[in-house]
Amino acid sequence: MTVQSLPDARSHEARLDRLAEIAVRVGLGLAPGQELVITAPIEGVGLARLVTEHAYRAGASLVTTLFEDEESTLLRYRHAPDESFDKVNAWLYEGMAAAYRSGAARLAIRGSNPALLAEQDPAKVARANRAMARAYRPALDLITQYTINWSIVPFASPAWARAMFPDEPEGVAVARLWDAIFASARVDASDPVAAWEAHNRELQTRAGLLNAKAYAALRFRGPGTDLTVGLSDGHEWLGGSTRAQNGLVCNPNIPTEEVFTTPHKDRVDGHVSSTKPLSYQGTLIQDIRVRFEGGRIVEAQARTGEAVLRKVLETDEGAARLGEVALVPFSSPISKSGLLFYNTLFDENAASHIALGQAYASCIRGGTDMSADELAGRGANTSLIHIDWMIGSDQVDVDGITGEGSSEPVMRGGEWV
Amino acid sequence: MTVQSLPDARSHEARLDRLAEIAVRVGLGLAPGQELVITAPIEGVGLARLVTEHAYRAGASLVTTLFEDEESTLLRYRHAPDESFDKVNAWLYEGMAAAYRSGAARLAIRGSNPALLAEQDPAKVARANRAMARAYRPALDLITQYTINWSIVPFASPAWARAMFPDEPEGVAVARLWDAIFASARVDASDPVAAWEAHNRELQTRAGLLNAKAYAALRFRGPGTDLTVGLSDGHEWLGGSTRAQNGLVCNPNIPTEEVFTTPHKDRVDGHVSSTKPLSYQGTLIQDIRVRFEGGRIVEAQARTGEAVLRKVLETDEGAARLGEVALVPFSSPISKSGLLFYNTLFDENAASHIALGQAYASCIRGGTDMSADELAGRGANTSLIHIDWMIGSDQVDVDGITGEGSSEPVMRGGEWV
Ligand SMILES: [Zn+2]
Ligand SMILES: [Zn+2]
Ligand SMILES: [Zn+2]
Ligand SMILES: [Zn+2]
Repeated sequence: MTVQSLPDARSHEARLDRLAEIAVRVGLGLAPGQELVITAPIEGVGLARLVTEHAYRAGASLVTTLFEDEESTLLRYRHAPDESFDKVNAWLYEGMAAAYRSGAARLAIRGSNPALLAEQDPAKVARANRAMARAYRPALDLITQYTINWSIVPFASPAWARAMFPDEPEGVAVARLWDAIFASARVDASDPVAAWEAHNRELQTRAGLLNAKAYAALRFRGPGTDLTVGLSDGHEWLGGSTRAQNGLVCNPNIPTEEVFTTPHKDRVDGHVSSTKPLSYQGTLIQDIRVRFEGGRIVEAQARTGEAVLRKVLETDEGAARLGEVALVPFSSPISKSGLLFYNTLFDENAASHIALGQAYASCIRGGTDMSADELAGRGANTSLIHIDWMIGSDQVDVDGITGEGSSEPVMRGGEWV
Repeated sequence: MTVQSLPDARSHEARLDRLAEIAVRVGLGLAPGQELVITAPIEGVGLARLVTEHAYRAGASLVTTLFEDEESTLLRYRHAPDESFDKVNAWLYEGMAAAYRSGAARLAIRGSNPALLAEQDPAKVARANRAMARAYRPALDLITQYTINWSIVPFASPAWARAMFPDEPEGVAVARLWDAIFASARVDASDPVAAWEAHNRELQTRAGLLNAKAYAALRFRGPGTDLTVGLSDGHEWLGGSTRAQNGLVCNPNIPTEEVFTTPHKDRVDGHVSSTKPLSYQGTLIQDIRVRFEGGRIVEAQARTGEAVLRKVLETDEGAARLGEVALVPFSSPISKSGLLFYNTLFDENAASHIALGQAYASCIRGGTDMSADELAGRGANTSLIHIDWMIGSDQVDVDGITGEGSSEPVMRGGEWV
């Protein structure tokens, strides 16, 4: 059944092996002698082993996989005392930060169950996330500042596949999700590495056009949306591969279809509606509607998950401000699949989006060498969180607003003009 | 098939759940609010989850399991560059030490494949072990000094079971190993916790008798063995449960049948032959014969694994000296099973044994409060390694040598006198 649904003659194992090779060569751009830290769902041990093999073949000095077990997470919510939810294994996050500081690359294999924590107390979920975000911060800074090369690749876990295809038998659901993953990761291209090089060139050309324009703001208009997103001073549009500060070129997200930059944290005004559900650490937040004033969300509603959304916005001062704005055409391959993935790695690549929270210093020219104060002076937001949510669709238009205040069409009906 | 071989009506799942409860209540003596760090083979995720549940029910603040994947270890030996074998993920060992320093308990679930590295280059194995031992040292010190409560419990991995029962189908082999594990861990007692309390009292009575004697040395005599093991000044015999420095009472090994103490690092003389194979990190070392002079091994041979043994002895100055001597009657339940486990946790509890390398400060009166110099002054050995190997059998006699030089029988034909 699984085999019949494949679009070509390659076996699942062969395609999985290619995904592992893409993760190491395209995703990480791993250097000989470099250490590698992998995080992976325990069900993804097969993919983790393939990545480990390709990493050693590429000259990795040591590969360590930290396996994550969602069942154990649930056991905590079911049986742990209340005090548990402010506790975090900071020693593990500090260890990861130490690994990155000493030069290790980082690969996250992701396939989490989008509904894992849906039944749990949102207050406990928020407390646990806040504690985790605080402990993770030093390691996350090394990642967002591209001190090291890093990447995220998907894994079709049964729980994720069931959430996407609830009416299919599990085997079919998993096979369909793998097909979507392999397609989006260009696994079936005759030369996947060359296909990624071409794709990176396209995204970088698009980013270059936007950088040449140097708009002061973008204006999004569509059903339930009229939002002006001021861009940070000296912002830079990025897309596709990135040269990390250690000189290595990585593709931080596989798949990726977006070009993105840093908005100005104090210059966002208007109202906006989400166009796809947001799966936030186990809770589905649907039909978000928020209003911004002076960069800050002053009103927030959602049809489902509103309590979790409100907790998220209260995480810290920066959690109610924007740290990213990204443009993705409605005709992008992931959007064309028509699938809802309940997973940011995919859904953000199916639609234009904004992110609450932490900005990427790399999206400000010279930003990775700037102090926190300098970055804030350019308008870059700081927060413990970074949560992307989708605001683009075939009914949303985007205009660029120049420094002089005139308006130019950038996207119409969700497509590049 | 599995079910038919069980000695009683309890299901495998119910017995596994009891083992998890014993690990938390008897092995760790976990305190409410305490953090727990588990290491487990990835195949042992089921047992790790049961332990996690019991730990949270006992009030654990947070349980983190670090899963170990032997397949990934093999991939390193097969594909990593030569430089890899001096590299270690020190950040992870430092993280674990930080967890213990902040009060976390530690459970090791062990079920490694005794032959995992048998085909690998002994020089690479030794280099990797040395790098690991160095990085692990700070965490191991917190364990050997009982700064925290800790325990080791067994898991019947397929690879371990196949090594023990090479002629059985894998399912039968695994079921037979589980039976042996459950029996040794007193899982089938009507009240396992009470059974462990009684067992601990017996071991502690035996240790008390030996402490009252305060022998200067033990003399082992049997086929290929005439060895005098001087005991450290102020040595203390221990057995069964231990009160850690954090006040919590733990059973560091499940199973355990031994009473043990710290020999004097400079006062071991004579020759000794191993009575069971030693499985050392994937290599079987069989028929060890060594000669001691002034505490140090000056000649060493083995029928198999001699190259690995020699590398072990070269680890550091203390690796060729003794850090432990332990007495176990030949009639101990694990010995009576007649099985060879290729696993120190079991085989050391089937026979009297000695250990190369690091001594336990807790086996010297007041030792956990002593400086390194004070401990050395009493005769306690230091090393990056601690490797137990079996020298007892039904043909080995043990005498106690008093301070005045007279001799008293302690064991005859492997049994307490
Ligand atoms: Zn984005
Ligand atoms: Zn983002
Ligand atoms: Zn021992
Ligand atoms: Zn020992």
